[in-house]
Amino acid sequence: MASRNIKLTIQYDGSEYHGWQIQPGFKTIQGIITDTISNLIGSEVRIFGASRTDAGVSALGQAALVEIDSPIPTENLAKAITDKLPAEIAVTKAEEIPFGFDIIGDVKNKLYRYTICTAKTRPVLQIKHCWHTHKKLDTAAMDKAAKLLVGKKDFKSFASAADKREESVRTIFRCDVNSQNDWVYIDVQGDGFLYNMVRNIVGTLVEVGVGRWQPEKITEILDAKDRRAAGPIAPPYGLCLMWIKY
Amino acid sequence: MASRNIKLTIQYDGSEYHGWQIQPGFKTIQGIITDTISNLIGSEVRIFGASRTDAGVSALGQAALVEIDSPIPTENLAKAITDKLPAEIAVTKAEEIPFGFDIIGDVKNKLYRYTICTAKTRPVLQIKHCWHTHKKLDTAAMDKAAKLLVGKKDFKSFASAADKREESVRTIFRCDVNSQNDWVYIDVQGDGFLYNMVRNIVGTLVEVGVGRWQPEKITEILDAKDRRAAGPIAPPYGLCLMWIKY
Repeated sequence: MASRNIKLTIQYDGSEYHGWQIQPGFKTIQGIITDTISNLIGSEVRIFGASRTDAGVSALGQAALVEIDSPIPTENLAKAITDKLPAEIAVTKAEEIPFGFDIIGDVKNKLYRYTICTAKTRPVLQIKHCWHTHKKLDTAAMDKAAKLLVGKKDFKSFASAADKREESVRTIFRCDVNSQNDWVYIDVQGDGFLYNMVRNIVGTLVEVGVGRWQPEKITEILDAKDRRAAGPIAPPYGLCLMWIKY
Repeated sequence: MASRNIKLTIQYDGSEYHGWQIQPGFKTIQGIITDTISNLIGSEVRIFGASRTDAGVSALGQAALVEIDSPIPTENLAKAITDKLPAEIAVTKAEEIPFGFDIIGDVKNKLYRYTICTAKTRPVLQIKHCWHTHKKLDTAAMDKAAKLLVGKKDFKSFASAADKREESVRTIFRCDVNSQNDWVYIDVQGDGFLYNMVRNIVGTLVEVGVGRWQPEKITEILDAKDRRAAGPIAPPYGLCLMWIKY
């Protein structure tokens, strides 16, 4: 039986997980999925994810690759795997893909959404999937600032100091701040993201939202190419990887 | 300092709790709130809840009474308590109320909402707050059945066999089944509910929804006055106590 290269689309509530990436001794999404597929097909597999989401971050469209050698037809794989996964993780799609496909390098476009709740009362049912703050946010100013991030730019100021990749130029196709009642949604769509980049962007936009900075400050921060120029990192719980396009 | 009788309005995500009521050795909502207020004011208090929600059931409008003897002004109490509670519980209102107020007996009207998800993919971010089923539901038939529950009736067939209360007549003011995309919402509003009554109603309406029973079966079930006549109990996670009026 020939082995197949399978691309998985994965959803998860990451609030109780130690992130995507396998770490011995910790409950991780990659770890749980690796074990589940290995048990299902009866041999050890390795899974390669498109995005190393942090502890507490969720996903509705993570992508991952796995090479399998099993008689289970591809069209039955998503359900077969999901049936064995914990309730907070699901494989929504499994498709055969040519060997040589690069799950990280071939990404063309990704959307992250960050959710903030500004309600007086904390939203107990959504508290693990948002950043609840009592700050009053000027979302029009935030959106104006967000627009200054769009384009092909050097995002070094928004990368975690722990990100050792030398190339920090990325293209942001869209950055929108929308609000509805007590909820604020920040959508950031781009061809790739540096480590903690979305959370650093959100923390910076919130500084604009509370009036500490003017929207134009974004240009100055980009020009600085220094993490210390941007705002503080936003908490992980509000972040969700919505989709990835190849 | 005179002691005050305080009515609290409480919200909680009950998915990880062993229900409202204190049980030694278990994590319960009443237990956590009792400990939190006792620690806050420095003396043991007792809390009396309006509804004994089951393990896994959530609330956006639980009510409870507590007698306190503390210098904290009533208007600051909700925030002071909430600041000490875990993130999944919040006190949204605290108000002084005359002694003699009966938190259970004085209830006039309560709304429970039950949420079902019929999406092909399980909703990983809401999985602890819904019943996910692959059954296709005829919500128009369910709504027709729901309307037959409205009125002052003997709901003995919908009470858990464990409910030993002799009086099983209750008034249902409203019972509506609404759907939006893959989501079905069942609202049941009444002057009081027998043990497990809403979940037994939901389980019965789902039997109508899948076509096993015609809507008119509801009348026959009510007439039987026997738990065995109704459908199976629905899982707790979909249930939420929305509000209580006095």
